Amino acid sequence: MNPESIKMPEAIHFAMEAAWSAYLQYRLLPRHRRVEFMYAIAHEIEALGDELIATAHSETHLPVARLIGERARTCFQLRSYADACLQGDWLDARIDTGDPLRSPPKPDLRKMNVPLGPVVVFGASNFPFAYSTAGGDTACAFAAGCPVVVKAHPAHPQTSDLVAAAILSAAKKCNLPEGIFGHVHGDGHETGALLVQHPRTKAVGFTGSFRGGKALYDLAQARPEPIPVFAEMGSVNPIYLLPGQLSERGEDFARQIAASITLGVGQFCTNPGVIVGLQGADLDRFAQVLRDEIIHTAPAMMLHQGIAAAFHSHVARALSQPEVIPLAESRTPFSSGESRPTIAQVTGAGFLSQPKLAEEVFGPYSILVQCGSSGEMEAVAEMLRGQLTSTFIATEDDLRSHEALVALVQEGCGRVVVNGVPTGVEVVLAQHHGGPFPASTDSRFGAVGADGIRRFCRPLAYQNYPAQLLPPELQNENPEAIPRTVNNVCTKEAIP
Amino acid sequence: MNPESIKMPEAIHFAMEAAWSAYLQYRLLPRHRRVEFMYAIAHEIEALGDELIATAHSETHLPVARLIGERARTCFQLRSYADACLQGDWLDARIDTGDPLRSPPKPDLRKMNVPLGPVVVFGASNFPFAYSTAGGDTACAFAAGCPVVVKAHPAHPQTSDLVAAAILSAAKKCNLPEGIFGHVHGDGHETGALLVQHPRTKAVGFTGSFRGGKALYDLAQARPEPIPVFAEMGSVNPIYLLPGQLSERGEDFARQIAASITLGVGQFCTNPGVIVGLQGADLDRFAQVLRDEIIHTAPAMMLHQGIAAAFHSHVARALSQPEVIPLAESRTPFSSGESRPTIAQVTGAGFLSQPKLAEEVFGPYSILVQCGSSGEMEAVAEMLRGQLTSTFIATEDDLRSHEALVALVQEGCGRVVVNGVPTGVEVVLAQHHGGPFPASTDSRFGAVGADGIRRFCRPLAYQNYPAQLLPPELQNENPEAIPRTVNNVCTKEAIP
Repeated sequence: MNPESIKMPEAIHFAMEAAWSAYLQYRLLPRHRRVEFMYAIAHEIEALGDELIATAHSETHLPVARLIGERARTCFQLRSYADACLQGDWLDARIDTGDPLRSPPKPDLRKMNVPLGPVVVFGASNFPFAYSTAGGDTACAFAAGCPVVVKAHPAHPQTSDLVAAAILSAAKKCNLPEGIFGHVHGDGHETGALLVQHPRTKAVGFTGSFRGGKALYDLAQARPEPIPVFAEMGSVNPIYLLPGQLSERGEDFARQIAASITLGVGQFCTNPGVIVGLQGADLDRFAQVLRDEIIHTAPAMMLHQGIAAAFHSHVARALSQPEVIPLAESRTPFSSGESRPTIAQVTGAGFLSQPKLAEEVFGPYSILVQCGSSGEMEAVAEMLRGQLTSTFIATEDDLRSHEALVALVQEGCGRVVVNGVPTGVEVVLAQHHGGPFPASTDSRFGAVGADGIRRFCRPLAYQNYPAQLLPPELQNENPEAIPRTVNNVCTKEAIP
Repeated sequence: MNPESIKMPEAIHFAMEAAWSAYLQYRLLPRHRRVEFMYAIAHEIEALGDELIATAHSETHLPVARLIGERARTCFQLRSYADACLQGDWLDARIDTGDPLRSPPKPDLRKMNVPLGPVVVFGASNFPFAYSTAGGDTACAFAAGCPVVVKAHPAHPQTSDLVAAAILSAAKKCNLPEGIFGHVHGDGHETGALLVQHPRTKAVGFTGSFRGGKALYDLAQARPEPIPVFAEMGSVNPIYLLPGQLSERGEDFARQIAASITLGVGQFCTNPGVIVGLQGADLDRFAQVLRDEIIHTAPAMMLHQGIAAAFHSHVARALSQPEVIPLAESRTPFSSGESRPTIAQVTGAGFLSQPKLAEEVFGPYSILVQCGSSGEMEAVAEMLRGQLTSTFIATEDDLRSHEALVALVQEGCGRVVVNGVPTGVEVVLAQHHGGPFPASTDSRFGAVGADGIRRFCRPLAYQNYPAQLLPPELQNENPEAIPRTVNNVCTKEAIP
């Protein structure tokens, strides 16, 4: 891997053409070959041992324990999406058998999902394993039958090189064409733009900032052949404190929320950046506990100097608004590259008058919005459309008596959490990590869980196709025992 | 309905705001209310009786028998998509139950599809019922829980008014808010642009030309909040004649293909516009029969003067290419507004040198491409990526011995037909009507069959949500008996 040489357009062209030629082979392989490959990648990543953790730690400043956990999650994703690939629900197989006696004859139609083609993946700085080189997007693309070209994140290039080598080693051991995986370095926007614009690129996965994701999305839509882009661009993940629960357990939740705000130095896309409650004694008590927690939380190294500088300047800008006053700042002195956990506060009216306050500040920062009425809370929810998550701290009675607010909030987010915190994204099929724009560029898909495979495939229907030449998934015998909808009934049975 | 007054931007704004306010109510109604509404629309359309058929006949020149059939298809779509709405497969319900004893506790996650919001639908001139005002896109949107605003097609405004009145009457009888359906007239591009750009519009369905569909797509992607557009923009639906079957049954298929080319005056988006075969005596015999059929096919009135004029000018342009020679032209004299069934022919090399020849000519026209080798056929298939359908006239041995061609063709289309014709799009779940760009703007979705509902919805996940407040579809008891994937197993059973 020579970062210098592969920055050049020729190298990008080479990687994409190699991916295309690998695609023409890979798409026709039985699914168990994809599964073997994905398991092999997990194995190769584990075999990198301490070197991988040490490299990632030195590049990202993330604690070793966290990195070990993230590596486990990455390998779990690879294996569980491989299992899902084999189980085959995502194929959406449908069969409507024909009727030659009908007039006109009813054709035999069989449909299943097939891969889109080479996928370009842009990893995230805050997840050097789980949402980077061999992360969720890469795993979904491989499961769907698509080769992947990764643009290495410039904040952890060596980590990315190690993981890329693991993937290529797995490909070799599984006798797959080398073009199944490409790895391209490049600091500026040019490399990413060339990858997205290359005619062999058929889809894009991205995790990162709104600016970066939207720029790639626009490039992809302006191509002669527009291609789907799934960009997960983060959000402020508002938490709504409803009065009953605030009164009953406000202090308890203040501690949980403080921990969520500062978890991983606040560097999660599900970090809660806005907390909304009704003015009064209960909210004051909540604020007091939140304040006590934050002032005693130590600063910590952020992912890189650029992110730390942006954090401090965004926090300073927020606090400089006339409507905003500081509620809490960590009392421990901080050094260069470190965060300073901070909570601001503002009235509902002040928040509504300053749309900038609703923008994500990446890091351990949150703003407490003190509303004067339920109507003002609804106005805040209306302003905060387009979230990955929204959270209610609420009793059942609270939810029942705030019907309009609950409806508004659900309408504007991808996941609604009750009496918990938005951080901690469980990797299961029922997870949804995405949401209305600007949380993501296509609210119909998500980035976590095996349903993410569907981002990178499309249906293909076979009409009156010779039985023996159909893909096994669509043959009468159902030799791979996948779930199929046959004449409108979901079944794993063979067709007699 | 006053076409003059509702051309104005204010009327568009009014329709979209009414749709939004209806959406906030409609999305929360139980699915059986959607089903009642869709059945009521079908009933109201049928109740329009002969007036609807006579009006459509006078506006479109389509034969009465065809219009009666299309009306039946439209009502079948409404009822069968309503049944699918109730059956609930499209909800993609997933439940992963929690485990409070795990460390950290595993949350309870439940996910299902929810509507996107108001959908703007642009109908097609060639399907005044089935792909217009109450056509497939409208039915899918209503099933998904979305209000619809239709831009009436200027080629059949009175037909559209009648159907719109039927929908509004059904809405009234079902006690739905009037904003559930809006109907806007307007000749120019401005009306369509304003509808697509309106901030309350959350998705677009379109059936028509590449130019029209792509223009709306670009507008939608350039919005501050980009929205999904499913534009089905037609294609040339190539037919590949493979040598074994051409030799065995070439004449038989020549007759079927001639009938497909001229069916409905060639005005179907699945009309076969390119026929590809290997030079030789068998292809000559095929061409002779095709020629005999076409010269004896009578011209017929096209949908409107503009379409007829475009047909004649596109055919004349194709025939004026030095590489192209006419194979057959209908011998019956034709009058203004009528088609003239025409077949051109060209060598493989000639076709490959003239990309314009691969563009759709809307009407009863096709070009026979005589290739010199299998390699040349593959080059043609490579050039013809992005089709709704591709067809093989082939024995099983033919398909086996043309593996590379078969793979290329499948990679580039949404439906592959064997020993049939592409026209006649069966409305079943296993149907796929869509394809890689430029056949459609999002190859991951289709416009025919109940899977089309998925275009207009998105997942929403509920984490640790109070059991009694969950939507019934996600409650343990599964009171609506929908299929759900519970802890990775698809079942209709309740959770104990």
